[in-house]
Amino acid sequence: MPYKLYYWDGIPGRGEFVRLTLEAAGADYVDVARLPGGTEEMLALMKDPSAVSIPFAPPFLVDGDLLIPQVANILFYLGPRLGLAPEDEGLRFVANGLQLTITDLLAEIHDTHHPISVSLYYDEQKPEALRRSAAFLGDRLPKFLSYFERLLNRNPAGRKHAVGKELSYVDLSLFQLVQGLRYAFPNAMRVHEPHLPALIALHDAVAARPRIRSYLASDRRLDFNESCVFRRYQELDQQF
Amino acid sequence: MPYKLYYWDGIPGRGEFVRLTLEAAGADYVDVARLPGGTEEMLALMKDPSAVSIPFAPPFLVDGDLLIPQVANILFYLGPRLGLAPEDEGLRFVANGLQLTITDLLAEIHDTHHPISVSLYYDEQKPEALRRSAAFLGDRLPKFLSYFERLLNRNPAGRKHAVGKELSYVDLSLFQLVQGLRYAFPNAMRVHEPHLPALIALHDAVAARPRIRSYLASDRRLDFNESCVFRRYQELDQQF
Repeated sequence: MPYKLYYWDGIPGRGEFVRLTLEAAGADYVDVARLPGGTEEMLALMKDPSAVSIPFAPPFLVDGDLLIPQVANILFYLGPRLGLAPEDEGLRFVANGLQLTITDLLAEIHDTHHPISVSLYYDEQKPEALRRSAAFLGDRLPKFLSYFERLLNRNPAGRKHAVGKELSYVDLSLFQLVQGLRYAFPNAMRVHEPHLPALIALHDAVAARPRIRSYLASDRRLDFNESCVFRRYQELDQQF
Repeated sequence: MPYKLYYWDGIPGRGEFVRLTLEAAGADYVDVARLPGGTEEMLALMKDPSAVSIPFAPPFLVDGDLLIPQVANILFYLGPRLGLAPEDEGLRFVANGLQLTITDLLAEIHDTHHPISVSLYYDEQKPEALRRSAAFLGDRLPKFLSYFERLLNRNPAGRKHAVGKELSYVDLSLFQLVQGLRYAFPNAMRVHEPHLPALIALHDAVAARPRIRSYLASDRRLDFNESCVFRRYQELDQQF
């Protein structure tokens, strides 16, 4: 039975971190909300009064009777099943810790354009977004990026991977992070990238993998846009 | 060998979710930063150039050779070892999904007083904090609280626990969430609590457990204060 992924149609967003892992493994899965009637199915499932396990928000994964919400949780579940997590149990917790740090960074990226409320449009919180983005680009983003670079250089199994000596879902997530940051903050990333040789090499190696290359060229891969976590608002990036 | 918990001294903060689980199990642990020289030991460990596994930020747990960062990750690791996670593997992922939703809520609570930057004082971002808190209390907090209430009522094993039929670390975290919200937003919580009978009953049942009662009365339990995630700024709460 295929895995069923539920996520908002039309944006890469948080769901993309799950898609990349499913695609890299060549897993059998359905991206439910992208099928006709799929969004309605997703919303009905979230409101089903008879459902035992209810997610707070998409994305969530359904595998048989099990409904698993939250990106890092889905990846912790899928990783060993798809051969994209370390064999060693201890290293799996190292991988999960990293994935949760990526999760934290994603929340901060989201809040650069929505620092006040998810219920308001960007234009309704633009002065605050300008101020938050300046702090993010000047202070937080360099801290996260240099952490990931340091981490790759410290991996005792080599700097080609974040954890262990094989590809894991954390590597795929770091790839997507670089992609999203390049889209949202091209100006800032041009400044940072020369100082991140291991992270950029990892990004390039992931992009060159046959299954990923074929996925990126397919219509299953959605373009970044201004409904996503990663948004290109020049005025926010140009503050850097 | 005792577990070693590393977290900032002087605040309950995110570390408290780990402390409660260790205390509820009667586990052997050391709260390193609260010992003389402990904060220096923690900072040295975070900067150790020979360390293989490096945390982005406290809290982190050390168990033998393993260093585990991120609260939800620590609890996923400790839960089964301390008898505070469901027996069933599927339910463990349900528990982790819930814990990550609590993590998301904590980040939003933090940002009510720091919507612009963690590097600025509250007073330097007060207009934005007023605006964000109004949106949080009017829109987000009710959404999260009614989700937790619904979830307890839907538990097929009974509404006494968030997941399964025994106490888990998720129950302990929901207890701490209610404690922190009562401290930070007493006005808002007075309005919400009558609509949250299952959540408040869970809170009270956790508080009445002998090990928890004894922990709360000890000097190991730190008071909430204005350096913590949960802060009492009347002007933010009174907007509700």
